[in-house]
Amino acid sequence: MKINDCSYTTIWMHPDDPGCVQVIDQRKLPFEFKILNLRSVEEAYFAIHDMAVRGAPLIGITAAYGIYLSLYNYLGHQPLQEYLVRQADFLKLARPTAVNLAYIVDKMAEMLSGFEDAEMAKNEALRLAEQFKQEDIDACEQIGKNGLALIEEIYERKGGMPVNILTHCNAGWLACIDWGTATAPIFMAHKKDIPLHIWVDETRPRNQGARLTAWELLQEGISHSVIPDNTGGYLMQHDMVDLVIVGSDRTALNGDVANKIGTYLKALAAQDNKVPFYVALPSSSIDFEMKDGLKEMPIEERDAEEVRYVEGWDGKRIKSLLLMPEKSPVANYGFDVTPARLVTGLITERGICEASKEGILHLFPEREQ
Amino acid sequence: MKINDCSYTTIWMHPDDPGCVQVIDQRKLPFEFKILNLRSVEEAYFAIHDMAVRGAPLIGITAAYGIYLSLYNYLGHQPLQEYLVRQADFLKLARPTAVNLAYIVDKMAEMLSGFEDAEMAKNEALRLAEQFKQEDIDACEQIGKNGLALIEEIYERKGGMPVNILTHCNAGWLACIDWGTATAPIFMAHKKDIPLHIWVDETRPRNQGARLTAWELLQEGISHSVIPDNTGGYLMQHDMVDLVIVGSDRTALNGDVANKIGTYLKALAAQDNKVPFYVALPSSSIDFEMKDGLKEMPIEERDAEEVRYVEGWDGKRIKSLLLMPEKSPVANYGFDVTPARLVTGLITERGICEASKEGILHLFPEREQ
Repeated sequence: MKINDCSYTTIWMHPDDPGCVQVIDQRKLPFEFKILNLRSVEEAYFAIHDMAVRGAPLIGITAAYGIYLSLYNYLGHQPLQEYLVRQADFLKLARPTAVNLAYIVDKMAEMLSGFEDAEMAKNEALRLAEQFKQEDIDACEQIGKNGLALIEEIYERKGGMPVNILTHCNAGWLACIDWGTATAPIFMAHKKDIPLHIWVDETRPRNQGARLTAWELLQEGISHSVIPDNTGGYLMQHDMVDLVIVGSDRTALNGDVANKIGTYLKALAAQDNKVPFYVALPSSSIDFEMKDGLKEMPIEERDAEEVRYVEGWDGKRIKSLLLMPEKSPVANYGFDVTPARLVTGLITERGICEASKEGILHLFPEREQ
Repeated sequence: MKINDCSYTTIWMHPDDPGCVQVIDQRKLPFEFKILNLRSVEEAYFAIHDMAVRGAPLIGITAAYGIYLSLYNYLGHQPLQEYLVRQADFLKLARPTAVNLAYIVDKMAEMLSGFEDAEMAKNEALRLAEQFKQEDIDACEQIGKNGLALIEEIYERKGGMPVNILTHCNAGWLACIDWGTATAPIFMAHKKDIPLHIWVDETRPRNQGARLTAWELLQEGISHSVIPDNTGGYLMQHDMVDLVIVGSDRTALNGDVANKIGTYLKALAAQDNKVPFYVALPSSSIDFEMKDGLKEMPIEERDAEEVRYVEGWDGKRIKSLLLMPEKSPVANYGFDVTPARLVTGLITERGICEASKEGILHLFPEREQ
């Protein structure tokens, strides 16, 4: 998508240096646009762990490039396959809730398990990372096309009035490679000149909505308002939301959706006000092994400092301020689980389905066991 | 209640200067403890408007002292009663949603309408302000005693385990004169040595929970955690909340409750997880004329800058940081309305009642028309 009218993706190979992968440092957005160089598996790990890159799909692709970087830097001090398994295990620890991370790392390790030659393994790792990257772009584009139909339907029903869409956190192209998941239908509708207004939850504590989603929409020239996370219920009570679209970090086979903390509250408000609530996700974030999301989903508890301090721009640089009494304890759960009963449908790259085992397996019959 | 182990109320007459009313400047808490001197009706207006004082009951009492200050500064350039009506109308504009403000100002004006002598009117205004102040303290104490019964019941049922209470915004003693409304049962339970843990919603965009409620609890030594507003649903899903108590800026006769934006979302989560949801309020914030809160409640739309920038402490002073792209628009609704069907009960100074016309009029039969 566009940044200052140039097209970008969120991750790419350095044009002149095969030992360097480049990403947008999302911790500095929207205040500064900086590129981060990743030259080792450790740098890939920390880019994920410290959220320079974030969003389930981008985390996965970054890990794939991380495997490539580990092979690029392989010195031969231990057997290749043993080394590879160790690097893969290391990468998987960077963010526990993101299923894409484990999924892609395991898949890479498996596909590289036959290699004995380090050079060939390295080349294959790069080829795979680039392939996963393209697959993600294609999946997001397909999600966009599938979700567009919902927006077009509302637009027609409203007789040409703007379609009001609420979204939580950033499931935008910055969370993926291009297009995004929750934002893909929005970008597609905008390209088709459907008038839109997007309600952007600021998404405490890290403010990814205010910082990233708002910035994406601004760069594409899409009408939007940033709102405190507390506001969505009011808007829905007053008929100011036609559709909610959020992303997902991990969706269980029964249709329960783990997403940024607070998603569940918006789903409750949507149900109470009969607003359709859709989750846009690539099938790589469906955990086909997890039967019951509410019961089984591991929830990351994050650093108290994320809540206690807030980051923002003082006009010259990014700074941090204390928000509460220094001695007050804090609880910081990263995600919540929205039960499938509150989800109108899942927008996947294969189509839209009901948030249920039946719905999911109808679209992905090859995953039936 | 206590500040650094000394007892305070939120508003009092200057001990040596009858032309000066003193309040705690709540805009600087919890980082600085500063006293603000109010010497005119304009200073009272701006203290309310700029939220140096906030919370329905305190706004009302500050306005009462504002009427007194207007009479203290009366120069006789226009007829006394005409002057008084003009000052009262001016004060009522400071915050449109707070029903206490209009209620107390109108009551003052009415009770002073028989006076022709400015000196006598001034003395009577002071007497009335002090009386309203004492009535508010008494009402909060009574709310505390009535709400305490709910906490004791849960404490017994849990066999001595800590009682977990979630609250939104600051309906603490800083919003009143002493005790608070939502916090009064908490302070009473703590004085009775019932173990508690309070989940404090930070309450964006002004962070009154993180800044004020957390500070109140810290000063009284009550166990608590500050949480992003997004967190309550997760906590309730995981049985980590036994009771929700919030305050109210204005409650309609049908039991619909206007309170800080986001309250409605917590009420939905409470209902979905069978957590009792109580609203603590003095009867002065019940609007007996308003038949249907959802339809009739006026909602204050506040300045975008409150959302766009955030205030905090940089270690030396209170500063402000930009949170989003400078060009992104913002929507900032101050309150939402929680429909009566989501409210387990109203805790008033006369007792606990159902959130309905029948429940309210059963406790306040003299208001039946």
